[in-house]
Amino acid sequence: MNILDLIDKKEKRETLTKEELKYIIDNYLNGTIKDYQMSAFLTEVDLLGLTEEETINLTDIMLHSGEILDFGIDNLTDKHSTGGVGDKTTIVLAPLVASLNVKIAKMSGRGLGHTGGTIDKLESIKGFKTSMSLDEFKNQVDKIGVALVGQMGNLVLADKKIYALRDVTGTVDSIPLIASSIMSKKLASGAKNIVIDLKIGSGALVNNLEEAKELANLMVKIGKTNNKNIACVLTNMDEPLGYAVGNSVEVLEAIDTLKGKGPEDLTNLVIKLGAIMTSMALNITEETAIEKVKENIFNGKAYQKFKEWVKAQDGDINNIEIAKNKQIFTSKEEGYIKNINALEIGKLARKLGAGRLSKDDIIDLTVGIILKHKVGDYIKKGDVLATILYNEKQITEEELLSCFTFTKEKIEKPKLIIDIIK
Amino acid sequence: MNILDLIDKKEKRETLTKEELKYIIDNYLNGTIKDYQMSAFLTEVDLLGLTEEETINLTDIMLHSGEILDFGIDNLTDKHSTGGVGDKTTIVLAPLVASLNVKIAKMSGRGLGHTGGTIDKLESIKGFKTSMSLDEFKNQVDKIGVALVGQMGNLVLADKKIYALRDVTGTVDSIPLIASSIMSKKLASGAKNIVIDLKIGSGALVNNLEEAKELANLMVKIGKTNNKNIACVLTNMDEPLGYAVGNSVEVLEAIDTLKGKGPEDLTNLVIKLGAIMTSMALNITEETAIEKVKENIFNGKAYQKFKEWVKAQDGDINNIEIAKNKQIFTSKEEGYIKNINALEIGKLARKLGAGRLSKDDIIDLTVGIILKHKVGDYIKKGDVLATILYNEKQITEEELLSCFTFTKEKIEKPKLIIDIIK
Repeated sequence: MNILDLIDKKEKRETLTKEELKYIIDNYLNGTIKDYQMSAFLTEVDLLGLTEEETINLTDIMLHSGEILDFGIDNLTDKHSTGGVGDKTTIVLAPLVASLNVKIAKMSGRGLGHTGGTIDKLESIKGFKTSMSLDEFKNQVDKIGVALVGQMGNLVLADKKIYALRDVTGTVDSIPLIASSIMSKKLASGAKNIVIDLKIGSGALVNNLEEAKELANLMVKIGKTNNKNIACVLTNMDEPLGYAVGNSVEVLEAIDTLKGKGPEDLTNLVIKLGAIMTSMALNITEETAIEKVKENIFNGKAYQKFKEWVKAQDGDINNIEIAKNKQIFTSKEEGYIKNINALEIGKLARKLGAGRLSKDDIIDLTVGIILKHKVGDYIKKGDVLATILYNEKQITEEELLSCFTFTKEKIEKPKLIIDIIK
Repeated sequence: MNILDLIDKKEKRETLTKEELKYIIDNYLNGTIKDYQMSAFLTEVDLLGLTEEETINLTDIMLHSGEILDFGIDNLTDKHSTGGVGDKTTIVLAPLVASLNVKIAKMSGRGLGHTGGTIDKLESIKGFKTSMSLDEFKNQVDKIGVALVGQMGNLVLADKKIYALRDVTGTVDSIPLIASSIMSKKLASGAKNIVIDLKIGSGALVNNLEEAKELANLMVKIGKTNNKNIACVLTNMDEPLGYAVGNSVEVLEAIDTLKGKGPEDLTNLVIKLGAIMTSMALNITEETAIEKVKENIFNGKAYQKFKEWVKAQDGDINNIEIAKNKQIFTSKEEGYIKNINALEIGKLARKLGAGRLSKDDIIDLTVGIILKHKVGDYIKKGDVLATILYNEKQITEEELLSCFTFTKEKIEKPKLIIDIIK
């Protein structure tokens, strides 16, 4: 077997066996197959696709390329978001379901994007510790039902190396490569119940519904093949989620949501995702689960669990800093907001310092953008569109206003939850 | 402009502008674009193709990536073969057309293949010098009408780097990449008249007629766009050309052919190619040119020019060594020869030491395989199939016999010249 023959086989549209895929992954990891050869193979996969069987096999090979965690805790639950602008869902969801005795043990990334990852956001709570030993992690889940850390263990070594290459070779947007990357990491994390929030839209990895459904079906298939309970929720990411985009501002919005005072879209999303997770983990109907989830938001138990969680990870909930400088941008137009470009809002937040362009960039956890409206709202000239919290770096009025488009016709609020595949 | 956007544009099946292609080539040469990124782009081209306009632009950009030769000699003629097993055509053609006052200035490679390149073959003539200065080269063409050297000048720098990458990334077999590689080198060599011998079959770069025609049309189009007289002759390379496969044995067969005593297929091919070259260079009809070419073979003038040429490059025509050890393999079957696998015969010649597997291998110019028959010949058990000339390395009877297949039905001799595109 050699890589040139396998590249040639793929070019001929033949199906690669598991043994052949394993040859590629193993030899790329050990350096026998070079970056430029792997890049040729990944480009083929990007252009020609993989069969469902190839994708399942590739995921399994990647899963076994690193450590596979086993916390010794039954019926663990995990949640993954493909990432969007203003996505603070995990920060609300984790304590919410934990307050219903759903055990959630989650690893999260710092992310390389418009804003920080969940880990960065949580670190805007002073003292919040995002690394701990496997034992400490397990003990915390045992004790309070929820724990969240950054990278732990050497999971899915193949994904790290392949992802870095995909990032610089234009092969990020391949459905089977996204599915195997996400699912190998989820499978390695040891949870029995998996809920994936798959974002669709301008600020997301995938921006058309057909591709999103294909990806969702593939991930659900991989999960089931590996004996997991799994659901994939397709949600709209054309406009930012909630109003706050940044790090500490997103934590504050998450806290509002846990108290039942959050934005409508975010609240509805956490209720739906929380109900699916609870239904899977406790083996109850989704209707019952929805009631329980709503109850724990409105009776304060979810927020209570959040405080418990923050404390367990040494965070000081009364010490979440936001930038002192404020600038308010108002509308020069009148009409219904037709679109708030999530991707561009994300880029502006990064420009303020809230996100990274390269891995070693230091981010400013205190800056961000707080939007005042959602798509469908009616706006008059002079109405506030957004408040900018900034330190050194600023953005211009023109940059912010260019994220909005208006229309004279009344328009429907976009549907947040587009589909659920399980 | 950046490479990821261009990879993405190509993935969307959009046409790249000349400026965009130049960005890719220039930045690959200066190291800004990495091997793994160029590999992704080349893989896209391999799978999705290029438009004719993109290929013409790419060729022009590659042409200008290095030196472009100008010998100051009008109406120069050049000939290129895409390479096959037993292909000694140039060694016959160059002196043949030069004997008709067609000026031929040719650069040739050592090649990395089953047998040596034309340069290696000519070096089996003791003393034959294959490097000289540009002035010496020009003077020799001026004086005797023919000169042939190895690499000269820094022609088409982009092709060197890209070809090396294609070789290790499974992107050798892309029609537009082959066309731009061959044609950029031909255009840089400064000839006005170009004839390309495009081999089709098991021992060749291209093995189906449709692709060969596509490649030929593309090369002719590129040539004409650059104001060249150009013809592309599609010839069969399912069985070796002539009988001799090696280095010195091929030179000896070329000499026989120059004397009018060569194999029928090789003789017919050099007459046809020679006539096209002569017709272009002297601006006479091909019918007239055929008569002239035949005449100079049979009146000894072509061989006379060969001797003159060898002498001009310091070769001793009476000193062409062949290996002393002979082994004769005979048939165990009876019937018509249905196929002589050119690729496998080539590999066996390389196994004897006649070719290189890697650039630094030293080849044995004296060894080779001399076939006794062609496809369509009737063979009895015990008839000689081939004589092997060897030194240290040998091949087995089984290996040699496995190159032949037989049939009881009488079969047509395959057509050597399949098509001519100009």
